[in-house]
Amino acid sequence: MIESKQNKRVKQWKKLHRKKYRDQTEAFLIEGWHLVEEAIKSDWTIQTLIMVEDRERPEVWSHMDTIYVSQDVFKELSQTETPQGIMAVVRQNKLEFKPKYNKILLVDAVQDPGNIGTMIRSALAFDIDVIVLGKGSVDLYHDKVIRATQGAMFHIPIIQDDLELWINYCQQNEIMVYGTALDKGAKSLNQVDIQDKFAVMVGNEGHGVSSDYLEKADETVYIPIHEQSESLNVGVATSIVLYHFSLLT
Amino acid sequence: MIESKQNKRVKQWKKLHRKKYRDQTEAFLIEGWHLVEEAIKSDWTIQTLIMVEDRERPEVWSHMDTIYVSQDVFKELSQTETPQGIMAVVRQNKLEFKPKYNKILLVDAVQDPGNIGTMIRSALAFDIDVIVLGKGSVDLYHDKVIRATQGAMFHIPIIQDDLELWINYCQQNEIMVYGTALDKGAKSLNQVDIQDKFAVMVGNEGHGVSSDYLEKADETVYIPIHEQSESLNVGVATSIVLYHFSLLT
Repeated sequence: MIESKQNKRVKQWKKLHRKKYRDQTEAFLIEGWHLVEEAIKSDWTIQTLIMVEDRERPEVWSHMDTIYVSQDVFKELSQTETPQGIMAVVRQNKLEFKPKYNKILLVDAVQDPGNIGTMIRSALAFDIDVIVLGKGSVDLYHDKVIRATQGAMFHIPIIQDDLELWINYCQQNEIMVYGTALDKGAKSLNQVDIQDKFAVMVGNEGHGVSSDYLEKADETVYIPIHEQSESLNVGVATSIVLYHFSLLT
Repeated sequence: MIESKQNKRVKQWKKLHRKKYRDQTEAFLIEGWHLVEEAIKSDWTIQTLIMVEDRERPEVWSHMDTIYVSQDVFKELSQTETPQGIMAVVRQNKLEFKPKYNKILLVDAVQDPGNIGTMIRSALAFDIDVIVLGKGSVDLYHDKVIRATQGAMFHIPIIQDDLELWINYCQQNEIMVYGTALDKGAKSLNQVDIQDKFAVMVGNEGHGVSSDYLEKADETVYIPIHEQSESLNVGVATSIVLYHFSLLT
């Protein structure tokens, strides 16, 4: 059992709270029973289970590399208010582009971890094949993103990549690209007639989808809302579009 | 200008961060330009503007009771990471039941401030007449709720009340009550045929709508989701139902 916060492994784990170090090691930390269970059920690779001294590892996980740590060490690593005594170091999944991706969510510079988490959860719920997080979006492996996905991230392909490449890919493969906008010059969501293959682009909390990308969209859609309402939360708006499209395909 | 954190008014304002004191004084604090602007545009009553020493009050607000405070005092009161130097004390709106309420959102014990904020924003967007926050829901005047509404709370009636009274009211007034559930024995949202008058009941993040209330619903609906998906965020689920109903009425 590790009892010292100065222990080399403890220091390495703690560094996983920083993006730079996550990128270098291609690993990240998850915390709490539910997330760890979801990761184990998935095809992601768990490198190490970290458990607090008094917790027992479930029998079915006995094959896993497990390290016990003291309460103090666990608290040092934890990023939650009421730690559950379990964490895992998980290897990042480096996915690539697959021709089977026909329902695509393109995310442009969404910065709030809760919003990204919501989008991932809803994309899984509404049968999206792949999510692409473009430049300027918060890191997928940020602890608040992971928590907000509630484990959904382990069950749907997610790629951090240049959106432009994906827009081009869609255009070359007869995948209709729908931009979302507040602009009422756009088409109302309930009038959109969609295809089996589609990509939905959603954008930053303040500015929406960048105009460079919007220009390349085959169609721009908006969600009709009450005049006194300024806008919807971007996680909500994305979810509504994906729900709507899921009914049509 | 107030420069001391020990000033009596400063102490009173600070106490508004606590529900108990908000209830006693029937007032609450809002922070930031956007929220203050939205409150001023609305029919809510601003009691006092609080501005940091170097900020200038817009000419159009010159009739308002304004108190300047030092940077230090403002920081003491602020609940944001990057304070904008403007706050207001607002009087709570005590609304009652009106027969004109035909589209009702009933919220049962939703505890996350961000979720309540999202629901309020979406309810305004999708033309709901009134939102009722039942027992066990987070306080409407919690600073995180207020921030998450992005000002929408000032433009839609919101009442903190006993849901049972409202369910009874709906039943006596031919307003169909729809409960939401994960239960696939319920009716799929896209098969629901709704009326002009409806109430939607949504529930707690963990347990959903309490069974006592669900039993009283005229109909129970669920949102069809992918089998690997456990559930949607409750703010998202509420927004999807309200969006869907807004298309039908």
